[in-house]
Amino acid sequence: MITINIIGSGNVAQHLISVFQQTENIMLQQVFSRKRESINHLISDDKIVTHYSDLKTADITIISVTDDAIAEVSNQLPFENQLVVHTSGSVGLEAINAKNRKGVFYPLQTFSKSKAIDFKAVPICLETENESDYAVLESVAKTISDKVFKISSNQRQSLHVAAVFSCNFVNHLYHLGKEICDENNVPFEILMPLIQETADKIKTLSPLEAQTGPAKRNDQKTIEKHMSFLDDEHKKTIYRLLTQSIQKYNG
Amino acid sequence: MITINIIGSGNVAQHLISVFQQTENIMLQQVFSRKRESINHLISDDKIVTHYSDLKTADITIISVTDDAIAEVSNQLPFENQLVVHTSGSVGLEAINAKNRKGVFYPLQTFSKSKAIDFKAVPICLETENESDYAVLESVAKTISDKVFKISSNQRQSLHVAAVFSCNFVNHLYHLGKEICDENNVPFEILMPLIQETADKIKTLSPLEAQTGPAKRNDQKTIEKHMSFLDDEHKKTIYRLLTQSIQKYNG
Repeated sequence: MITINIIGSGNVAQHLISVFQQTENIMLQQVFSRKRESINHLISDDKIVTHYSDLKTADITIISVTDDAIAEVSNQLPFENQLVVHTSGSVGLEAINAKNRKGVFYPLQTFSKSKAIDFKAVPICLETENESDYAVLESVAKTISDKVFKISSNQRQSLHVAAVFSCNFVNHLYHLGKEICDENNVPFEILMPLIQETADKIKTLSPLEAQTGPAKRNDQKTIEKHMSFLDDEHKKTIYRLLTQSIQKYNG
Repeated sequence: MITINIIGSGNVAQHLISVFQQTENIMLQQVFSRKRESINHLISDDKIVTHYSDLKTADITIISVTDDAIAEVSNQLPFENQLVVHTSGSVGLEAINAKNRKGVFYPLQTFSKSKAIDFKAVPICLETENESDYAVLESVAKTISDKVFKISSNQRQSLHVAAVFSCNFVNHLYHLGKEICDENNVPFEILMPLIQETADKIKTLSPLEAQTGPAKRNDQKTIEKHMSFLDDEHKKTIYRLLTQSIQKYNG
């Protein structure tokens, strides 16, 4: 039986509380939350702690708070030389106070409170300061997910940057596409099957192989038509840069 | 019974040949292909025509060839005053020779020869020169798809531009994300659930509502970390421009 403490009551913390309570061989020992109300629908009252001084040691203490609060929370822990991990994609190992043994337990998925998550499909990226701590963290991760990866702080940073390109920026391009549709009274839903297909395709092809469109074909006539169709300088600039970029990589 | 001719033997033509042969109340009368071999696995030999002069009139003649060939093919048709439509997203109505009545039958999806398509979910965009021709074209479209839209040439052009943003450019951002992963020996598959979730989310939220990430939060610290992580000037330029763009629209 592995014992776990969770510090925090946000989206990730709540999903972890739920999944650990349903998992054999894991004992969710204590959850720290400043406000009892934010988690007492998830866990019995006697496990909720509102003062750091009431926290007991556990095999793993998971700090699942906002990035900026990780260091301060780790300072407040009333014990030493325990395995303490955070759940952030963009914060290094070093944010955790050196009085404990540091690690990272980073589930890479968008969590929203209202939507249940199938944790088995959520990639979990692990890192520990000491090799000896890795085994216990890995055993916990593997009980809840089929996709567990050993990822260094630098690699995690690269993942975070890659996710900005492949998710945040992608979503923004959906928005620009929708705006072009809206301006021309065309339902954006017409594009939806193509958008879904674009995301599906890269499950079996590399994005480089999957690339299509006028830039890839070097179809200058269509590119010029599109550029003159766009009346907005901002969209023109994006169109030009990403067209050049496709030609740079796919040329 | 509506009679249809198809001119062409490419991806779209082949999918249309298959679906029309399975559709009640539609009679696929003739298919023109320069090479008999490219379609004789799909349709009986007596329906294949290799000379334009052998084409008979039909209720609808569908020209499904490359954009540049549409005008020339329409010149070759041996009849006049018939409904003739093309299947291109980026070519205007006017490409079709004026001796016939012009229209467009544009199925908006990525077609690959090897993959079966559920046509019911494929949006089909229709346009006709004469209002009276619209009804017959619509009735055919509705027998094969649940998503039929009346779309003018200008609207179709806007859709094509929007698809470049929301599909071609999106796929390229998948590639840039993958490259960042590759450079850091991180498996790109770790990002896959997040990429799928990003595409799924906009089925229920507008892309503007669905936007997340450092640019949206105006998290300058993370943006600067990412900028200094990227060592490649090209990726920095894209990161900067799309970050500004998110802030412009979501600010």
